[in-house]
This record gives sequence, structure tokens and C-alpha cells, in this order.
Amino acid sequence: MSGPPDLASLAAEVQHQLDQKTKPVGALGSLERLCVALALAQEHPRPQVDPARVIVFAADHGVTRHGVSAYPPEVTAQMVLNFAHGGAAINVLARAAGASLEVVDVGVAASLPPLPQIVSAKVRRGSRDLLEGPAMSPAECVEALAVGARAVDRARADGVRCLVLGEMGIGNTTAAACLLAGQLDLPVLGVVGRGTGLDGAGLKRKREVVRRALALHAAERERPEAWLAAVGGLEIAALTGAMLRAHALKLPVLVDGYIVTAAATMARALNPAVAQQLIHVHVSAERGHRLALKALGVTPLLDLDLRLGEASGAILGLPLARSACAILHEMASFASAGVSGRVGT
Amino acid sequence: MSGPPDLASLAAEVQHQLDQKTKPVGALGSLERLCVALALAQEHPRPQVDPARVIVFAADHGVTRHGVSAYPPEVTAQMVLNFAHGGAAINVLARAAGASLEVVDVGVAASLPPLPQIVSAKVRRGSRDLLEGPAMSPAECVEALAVGARAVDRARADGVRCLVLGEMGIGNTTAAACLLAGQLDLPVLGVVGRGTGLDGAGLKRKREVVRRALALHAAERERPEAWLAAVGGLEIAALTGAMLRAHALKLPVLVDGYIVTAAATMARALNPAVAQQLIHVHVSAERGHRLALKALGVTPLLDLDLRLGEASGAILGLPLARSACAILHEMASFASAGVSGRVGT
Repeated sequence: MSGPPDLASLAAEVQHQLDQKTKPVGALGSLERLCVALALAQEHPRPQVDPARVIVFAADHGVTRHGVSAYPPEVTAQMVLNFAHGGAAINVLARAAGASLEVVDVGVAASLPPLPQIVSAKVRRGSRDLLEGPAMSPAECVEALAVGARAVDRARADGVRCLVLGEMGIGNTTAAACLLAGQLDLPVLGVVGRGTGLDGAGLKRKREVVRRALALHAAERERPEAWLAAVGGLEIAALTGAMLRAHALKLPVLVDGYIVTAAATMARALNPAVAQQLIHVHVSAERGHRLALKALGVTPLLDLDLRLGEASGAILGLPLARSACAILHEMASFASAGVSGRVGT
Repeated sequence: MSGPPDLASLAAEVQHQLDQKTKPVGALGSLERLCVALALAQEHPRPQVDPARVIVFAADHGVTRHGVSAYPPEVTAQMVLNFAHGGAAINVLARAAGASLEVVDVGVAASLPPLPQIVSAKVRRGSRDLLEGPAMSPAECVEALAVGARAVDRARADGVRCLVLGEMGIGNTTAAACLLAGQLDLPVLGVVGRGTGLDGAGLKRKREVVRRALALHAAERERPEAWLAAVGGLEIAALTGAMLRAHALKLPVLVDGYIVTAAATMARALNPAVAQQLIHVHVSAERGHRLALKALGVTPLLDLDLRLGEASGAILGLPLARSACAILHEMASFASAGVSGRVGT
């Protein structure tokens, strides 16, 4: 019997609670805005982020054959094994932040041994070369979206209240650059960066690949799902599906860097209301991320010059989100603490 | 028999360790720089920040009689009681970050009941009105410096490895503005802000007070200890003493906002080597903080539009510091994880 949620009233209610706390109005700045964002994402005036889960989707990219990455494509599989053994940055950072970690193979090109730490959900062994045709068939793209949605369903079944989304995929800044340029109408020079560390010649090649991809698939730009299939990637589609599902389940999503922002852009194109779930934690050092965030009209919390992916930036937002919730739940009010208000009020 | 530490070699050693980790070189940006900074502060290649302690020094300011604050001076004592009862922002944020909290009354104007949560180390009941003479006598200033040093000694005795310093004191942005303007040669218009929320008329009064204080005490500007006594405050002197002691004990200090930065400026003036201990966590929304950080040549980690004090900004750096240490201690290397390096290398 409940109607559509009155989000403006909910935001006002949370801000009113914050304004009673023993601090000058607004003095906790971004932490207060984060409180409100989490409340809106959960559609609840008392948001909570624990337990939190990091989900990293991994896949390979056919476009790597064009020399668009500083690292060889086999690194994707090697890094998935590194995740399984607990040695990657996101393993360390998720432990430090007190979040569980799930790694999903949605399209790694290699055969991986069965590993209890890795969810095997391979749609195909890497996306196709996007200069030869669409990176994914429509059916593959739909399947990858569903892999993302199922990961969120598992998290929800485990009682998770906040998602932290990341990716691993050698070549995926090229796919993300194509998605962002096409979807947000951004210039190729503005969105193509060095990724894991391309040199000048590599950067030039990568720009040319993105230009050719945009020309080849121009007809698909009008329909987001077709665009995602044409120039995206399996892990990016899974991220997109995860965000759409997070919206349905009212779970906040801590958004990582450049590639996850490309997925967020596609999720918003498919359902603008998904924006309510998305908390953009950091701006990456990868060229184009700042531009994309600006085009989306969002302000990230952190600017720490990171460019690793794996959710390594997003996870740094979890302690901030936890602190924001604690402020709302635990801080005394002027009245309860017997603290005087402003002079003359 | 050990000579002076070779800090350049230590920094290079830590960066070399980081460069072996399974990530592109430099991809963890500010987290890597934070690793190095913590290693230098502890003069140890494997820095650790736990256990961490927040120390908040509280004192009143005679200058409040000139209407330089939006809140009445009795709020200082009321907030100390709020700290004792666990309801203030820093109580909540220290708990969320897993740090202990010590509150030190170094000069609250009211008589506080004995409280197990509050260290009573009152030098006097508030500093003097700095428009009538020096805010502190030389002896009072020395005593306040010693109060800060003793708090650090207690922390060290408790095994603390990282300090998070903050303050509470209605009127203390006026003292901090005087200190910064005089010590860093910054313009009054650039350093005087609204504090807890002064209106336009109040801001004008506050600027005039700072101008008069600078003129009245101009002769003291050449000697940092005299300048601190002339226009500082008891909690600012205690913070300064804490930083000097932290340097002697090789403890890193997470520096909070505007007022703690004024103390950092004075500590560096008294001993430039103290800079090795100081990690400036955030830039406050208080006018003048950005300018002061720039004059000190430091780049803060966070810009979250905070303006509360109490170490509420500095404590948000603790999870980052912990994550930085964990990266160094726990991440796999390319060799140990069997991950390929860059193409062509």
C-alpha cells in the first residue's frame, strides 16, 4: 500500500536530525551529505553500511590485440589468482576496512582452476575485438548483466547493506573510454588515458582504436543496451547489472574509478533512478574520469591520485560511510547534552 | 652508535618495496606517499599506526569578550562534559575509527567536576584577552607546552604508535588567525574566517581584533615562543608541545584543521624537524586554512568541507594510514604472486 517514496522529505528529515547534533550546522560538510545520500539509497532515515561487501568482476577484452595496454592480457587471470590467494590491493584494503570480498569471473580468457574464493560465471572467454564487430552479442550482454544482478542477490541474501564495486580486466580502460565518449558525448582526447601506464606511442594507438570504434558502432549509440554490447566489456556489463539490481534492492553502491563510472553511466542510461544508489567515492588519476564525473553532475568524496581499479578507491569510502552513519546514530543533540546554542538565537 | 638517520635512503627503501607490489608503479598515489610519510615519521621501514590515540586539548580564550565567536564561551566547558559523556563528534568518530580518546583540560574557564574521562591539567582559567596584553605569560606558555608533551608521554607509555590531535576552545580561530598571519606573513583578510558561523558584522569585528592584536604584539613576531604566548592559546600551546614531543619520540601526528595547523606552524618554527612527524589530513572549510597549508608547502589528503575541529577531520585519516601500512605489510609482489610485468620490460 506504500506509494512512491518521498525522497525530499526523507532528505529533510535526516538533515534535521543532523542539525540537532552538538556541532555548528553543516560543520561536518561532506560527511553530512554522505549521511543523506546513504539514507536516500536505503530509503531509510537511519542508514547502516555494515556488513559491507566488495564485489570485483573480472573479464578479458579482445581489443587488447591492438596494443592498448601496458600489461599483457594474461595478467587478468594472474590477478584473479592473486585475488584468490589474498595478495592483491583489494584483498588488503577490504580486510583493513572490514568488508567481505567476492571476485566474479564473468569472462576471463583463461581456464581458471576451481577456487573457493572465485565465483565462476564466465559468459565467454573475453569479449570480442570491438574493431571487428560488437564486443558482445545482445544475448551475451544480457547474460553478463544477469551475472552482476545475481552477485547482488547473493550479497543481499548474506545480509549485506552496502556494496563496493570494482573490476579487473586488462584492456578495460579502452572499452570504458568508448562507452563514456559515446554515452556522454565527450571528446576522445578528453577520455582516453594511459590506463596502467601506456607510453606515448601506446596512447596514440589507443586513441585511434577508440576513434575507429566510435565510428564503426555509431548506429548503436542511441540505445544504451546496444552501446554497452557494442563497445563495452563483460565485467562492465556485470557492473551495470549489479547497479540496476542494487537499485531494486535499495542497496547503496560505493563507486570506484574510471571503469566503474563507465558502468554507472550505462546503468543510469538504462534507468535514471539508479543514480539514487550511487556514491562516487573518488576521482581517479586516469584521464577522463574527472570529465565523466562532471558530465554526470556528481562530486566525488576523495581525490587521492589512485589509478588501480579493483575497487581500491571505492573501499576507502567505506570508513567514511560508516562514520557518517555513526554520527547520525550516536552523536548527542544540543538538548540532550545541555550545550548552549548560538549567541542571539 | 647510530648516526643521524638517513631519511632519503629510508624513503627510497619503502618506495622500492611498494614498487614490487602487484600494481602499476605509483598506482596507489597518495596511499603510497602516506606509507613513505609514516615510515619517515617512525624512522622505520615497516610503519604501524595501531594503537592510535586521539588527544583533544581544551581551553578558553579571553578574546571572546570582543564578540569574535558565534557561540558563547561557556560552550567550551559544556563540550568537555559532552566529550566526557561520549556524545560529541570526536567520541563517535574515534570509536568508529578504532582509536582511544583522551581529553585534556589545559585551560577551560569553568570549574569542571572530576571526571575519569578528562585529564585535568589546567594552567589557568582561559588565556588572557590578547588586546590587553599577552594571552599567556612566558611561564604559562611553557607550562601549556609541557601539558602537551606529558599527554604524548602517556600515549607512548600506553604503546600508542600514532597520534591524532585536535582541540576545543570557543574563540580559538581568532588566536589561530593571529598566529598564522604573524608567523607565515599572511594577510588578515586571507586568514580570518567565520569560525563556528559568525555573521558579517561578527566577521568584521574579528578582523579588526586580529589587526589590533598584530599591531599590539608586533615586537614578539621574531621569536616563536614569544609570539605563541602573545597571541596563542593554552590548547594551541599544548598542541605545539605535543608535536615537539612526538618528534622526540618518533610518533606520527595526524593533523586536524585550522587551529591544529596554527600549532603545527609554531612547532615547526620552534624546531623545523618536527615537519617529519606531521601528516596534514584535511583542508578545512575555514577561510585561511588552505592558504596556511600552501604557505607551509604541504598537501592535505582530504578536502571534505569540514569545519568542526575536535580532531574530527584528522581522525578520518586514520583508516587511510592503516590501509597504507597494510599495503606495505600484506600485499603480494609480482614475483611472489607470479604476475607478469609490463609489456617489453
